[in-house]
Amino acid sequence: MSTTSRGATASPASYGIGARFSMHPMTDDFVPVILDALAAGQHREVVTSTDDVSTFVQGTESEVLGYLRDVIAAAGAGGGHVVAHVLLSRGCPGEVSCALPDDAGYAPEPLRPLAATGLTAAAHWSLYPLSAEREHMAVIGAAIEAARADGIATGSAHFVTRLDGDLAAVLETIGQAWVTAGRAVQHVVSHATVSLGSPTGREQA
Amino acid sequence: MSTTSRGATASPASYGIGARFSMHPMTDDFVPVILDALAAGQHREVVTSTDDVSTFVQGTESEVLGYLRDVIAAAGAGGGHVVAHVLLSRGCPGEVSCALPDDAGYAPEPLRPLAATGLTAAAHWSLYPLSAEREHMAVIGAAIEAARADGIATGSAHFVTRLDGDLAAVLETIGQAWVTAGRAVQHVVSHATVSLGSPTGREQA
Repeated sequence: MSTTSRGATASPASYGIGARFSMHPMTDDFVPVILDALAAGQHREVVTSTDDVSTFVQGTESEVLGYLRDVIAAAGAGGGHVVAHVLLSRGCPGEVSCALPDDAGYAPEPLRPLAATGLTAAAHWSLYPLSAEREHMAVIGAAIEAARADGIATGSAHFVTRLDGDLAAVLETIGQAWVTAGRAVQHVVSHATVSLGSPTGREQA
Repeated sequence: MSTTSRGATASPASYGIGARFSMHPMTDDFVPVILDALAAGQHREVVTSTDDVSTFVQGTESEVLGYLRDVIAAAGAGGGHVVAHVLLSRGCPGEVSCALPDDAGYAPEPLRPLAATGLTAAAHWSLYPLSAEREHMAVIGAAIEAARADGIATGSAHFVTRLDGDLAAVLETIGQAWVTAGRAVQHVVSHATVSLGSPTGREQA
């Protein structure tokens, strides 16, 4: 548990800013696809750690989202069906204790735009502002409205909002909502299942 | 939005009890593996709807968990590497509005035990009690302690708790925590990435 004070000195580590994700290329050759994709993110300023279930990514909001964009785009570049599951978290560096010097929201960094990938993605997305003080659904509602205004949120379903667009635009929408909610709420988690190259058209749903 | 009153008359639909999940068999032949696996859950009393990103499942807590057990076990029965991502939700039948007749927790049904599958699973699990009134980390902490006492929670990592065991025991732990938290908090969501047959040993992490 960090004792770093909030503000200019808060770091991704002390504030618990990062992601956990897994990628699933639906091919017999999934191992090299995953390893090559992870290598495509090496130039980003993030700390990563991969185990048999998922990869942990720590860094600033923009670097984490940039890393996810590069790695998932690399996995999908071959045109095969690839699904990634992404968890974004901020404001709770520990597993259970979220104690921080104060419990106000904190999200100083505007998210840098992500370069388009040319890959079309469909996602099921959810946002969880974990606050004891605020009405969490109001924060979620504002985030969904913003995503609709951007044209990326295309529908809603049980428990999730659907996003469609270039992979970069989908990740930007998810990341922007996470950062925006983080200005009002300390502990904000977001999950998304992001699908590329699915053989099932949306119309078949 | 349902106006059904809580208590004996609350139904999975009116209280928003259900799951959303996706399965990713890492094989060129993923389509028949997924379709055959989904068929293995047909005997369960659930309502399902599959689109190109995930499958929605609605039913009682026990039927939903039983369905997930049957379907994921069927996908993993061939011994290949299969990852499932599971979202469990209760207490918020709408996308944004969680308005229900009162905002107390409600979880009347004890979870029925799941039959062992013979398949070893590793999972990264997180639990989100989305309550404006209660300290959410206390509810999470109690759930993790219970999972540790069962011997299924084997470690913690950034943002998630690690679970290891028979697929059925892993799903039971996730389901039991979701139901238990639901007795204290209305809107409870849980996410888990469940991996079967990974070629990467845990020691390599």
